[in-house]
Amino acid sequence: MDKRRIDRDSVWRNARIPSRTNAAERDDAHAQRGAAHTPYPASRRGEEVRVYGCNACLAVFAKRLDDVRKVYLTDARIAEFKSVLAWCVKQRIGYRVVENEDLDRLTESQHHEGVCFEVRKSPPLPLRELLQRIPRDEPALLIWLDGVGNPHNVGALLRSAANFGARGAILPADAPALSGAAMRVAEGGAEAVPLAQAHAGEDVFESLHDAGFAVAATVPRAGRDLYENKLPDRLALILGAEGEGMSARLIADADLRLTVPGTGAVESLNVSASAAVLFAEYWRQHLS
Amino acid sequence: MDKRRIDRDSVWRNARIPSRTNAAERDDAHAQRGAAHTPYPASRRGEEVRVYGCNACLAVFAKRLDDVRKVYLTDARIAEFKSVLAWCVKQRIGYRVVENEDLDRLTESQHHEGVCFEVRKSPPLPLRELLQRIPRDEPALLIWLDGVGNPHNVGALLRSAANFGARGAILPADAPALSGAAMRVAEGGAEAVPLAQAHAGEDVFESLHDAGFAVAATVPRAGRDLYENKLPDRLALILGAEGEGMSARLIADADLRLTVPGTGAVESLNVSASAAVLFAEYWRQHLS
Repeated sequence: MDKRRIDRDSVWRNARIPSRTNAAERDDAHAQRGAAHTPYPASRRGEEVRVYGCNACLAVFAKRLDDVRKVYLTDARIAEFKSVLAWCVKQRIGYRVVENEDLDRLTESQHHEGVCFEVRKSPPLPLRELLQRIPRDEPALLIWLDGVGNPHNVGALLRSAANFGARGAILPADAPALSGAAMRVAEGGAEAVPLAQAHAGEDVFESLHDAGFAVAATVPRAGRDLYENKLPDRLALILGAEGEGMSARLIADADLRLTVPGTGAVESLNVSASAAVLFAEYWRQHLS
Repeated sequence: MDKRRIDRDSVWRNARIPSRTNAAERDDAHAQRGAAHTPYPASRRGEEVRVYGCNACLAVFAKRLDDVRKVYLTDARIAEFKSVLAWCVKQRIGYRVVENEDLDRLTESQHHEGVCFEVRKSPPLPLRELLQRIPRDEPALLIWLDGVGNPHNVGALLRSAANFGARGAILPADAPALSGAAMRVAEGGAEAVPLAQAHAGEDVFESLHDAGFAVAATVPRAGRDLYENKLPDRLALILGAEGEGMSARLIADADLRLTVPGTGAVESLNVSASAAVLFAEYWRQHLS
C-alpha cells in the first residue's frame, strides 16, 4: 500500500464534522485529485452502490443504517445531515465534505442534490420469502416489472408504489441491481418497497397463486376497464416497458387484463402515470 | 440573397419522396454543412418551433396541417410518414431526408425518433375564449399550471390531461411557448388540450367562477382526501411545481385543497404521477 493511499485512509478515519467549509481540507482534496485523477477510493463495485439525492440518502439512513459505507456531501447539506455525520463519527464511518463538481463526477449525475452515500447493495429477496412475509388475510398489492429497465421509470414506479403501500416489487430474473439514479428518482421509495426475484425455474404465477394473489397484466387497450369492477384484494400487477410493452405470454397467462380508460387522444399513458393511476385505484378500493 | 441561399431554397422546392436514402443528396447536405456550419435555413425563431417525435409530429399533422413549414426525417421513417410527404409535395412544403445526427443537432435532443417538423407556433387562447368554448351544462376539467416549467413535466401533464379529457390548460402569463421537448413528451397530447392564458390584469379566479368552475389546489398534505367527497363537475385543478410547490396565495384563494392520500413512506408523489391520479379520479366520477 503506497503512502498516498495510507494518507487518504487516515483522512477518512479522522474525519470530524466541520462547522463551516474547511478551505484547507478542500485544497487537500483538490491536490489529491490533481495527483491521482480521482480523490476517492474506488468503491467496491459489485458490492456497493452510490445512492444520491436527499430523500434517497435519508431513507437509506432510516432503514438500513448498517449498509452505509461512506458519506460525501457539500457544505450546504451539513446542517440537514447533522445526525448522519454524528453517527459517522461514532461508528468510524468516513465522511467527506466535497464540492458540487466532485459529486457530479462521483455520481455521474447533476441531480445529486449535494449528497451521496456509498451503500452496501441489498440483494433482492427470494420471491417465496417476500410472499411469506405478507399475512394471508390482508389485502396486498404487489408490482411485477417486466422489461421496465429505464432507471427513471423504475424509480418513478417505486416512488408511487411506496406512496400507495405496495408490499413489494418483483424484478425480472436478470435485472441488474437498482442504480443510484433509480433510487434518486424513487425519493426514498426504493427503501419502502422490498424487491424480490424468483429463483431459477420458479413459476412466478404459481408462487403468486399459492399465496392467494390474482395476477393482472396492464395493457394499453382492450383490457377490462379499470373502473368497471372491483379489483381483487390480493393483486399482483404486471407493468411492462413502454414501447414494446410486456411479453405476450405474460399477458395471455394473467388472470385478468386491465386497461386505464381514456379519450384515445393519445395512444397511451406514460408507464409511470398509468402505474400511479392503477396503484391509486387499488388504494381507493382496499386501503383507504 | 447569395447564390448558396438560392440553391438551398430550390432544393426545398424540388423535393420529392425518395424511394430509398439518396446518397448524392446526403453528400450534398454534408457539403453544405461544411460550407455554412449549418445545412438548415435558420428557423424563424419566435414564429416557429421544432416539433419532434413520431406521435407529436403526427398529431400536429392531424390537427393543424397548415402550420407545418418544413419536414425533416430519416430514411427509416419514410414509410410511416408517406401521407405527410405526399402532402408536402402537393403543397410545395419542403421536406428533407436526413441522417440521425442531423436531427440530433436540429432538435438538440436524441429523442427525436427520426422525425422533426418546423411548425408555426400556435399562440395560447385568451382564457375567456377557452371558457366560452366549453358548454355551460357539461362537466369539464381544466388544468392550471403554476410554476411547472420543466418541459418534461409539462409534456407529461399534457399527455395525461389529453388521455383523461381535460378541456384546456391555463398557463402562467409569463410562460414561454411550448418547447419541442415538451411536445415530444406529450406524445400528441399538446395538440389535444388547448392552451390558454389570462390577459394582463385578468382575475383568473373570477373568470373561472363566472364560467361555473370550482378551483382546487393540489397540495401534498393536509388538503381534503381526494377520495373523501365527490369532485365538483366543473373543476379547474391548480398543479404546482415540485419542490417549491405552488404559490401560497393560490392555495389560500382556491375553493378547495385536495391531497392525494398515501402511506407517507415518501414525502410526496411526483407532480405528473399526482396529476394522473387526480385526472383519472375526475374521469371515473364524471366522464366514465
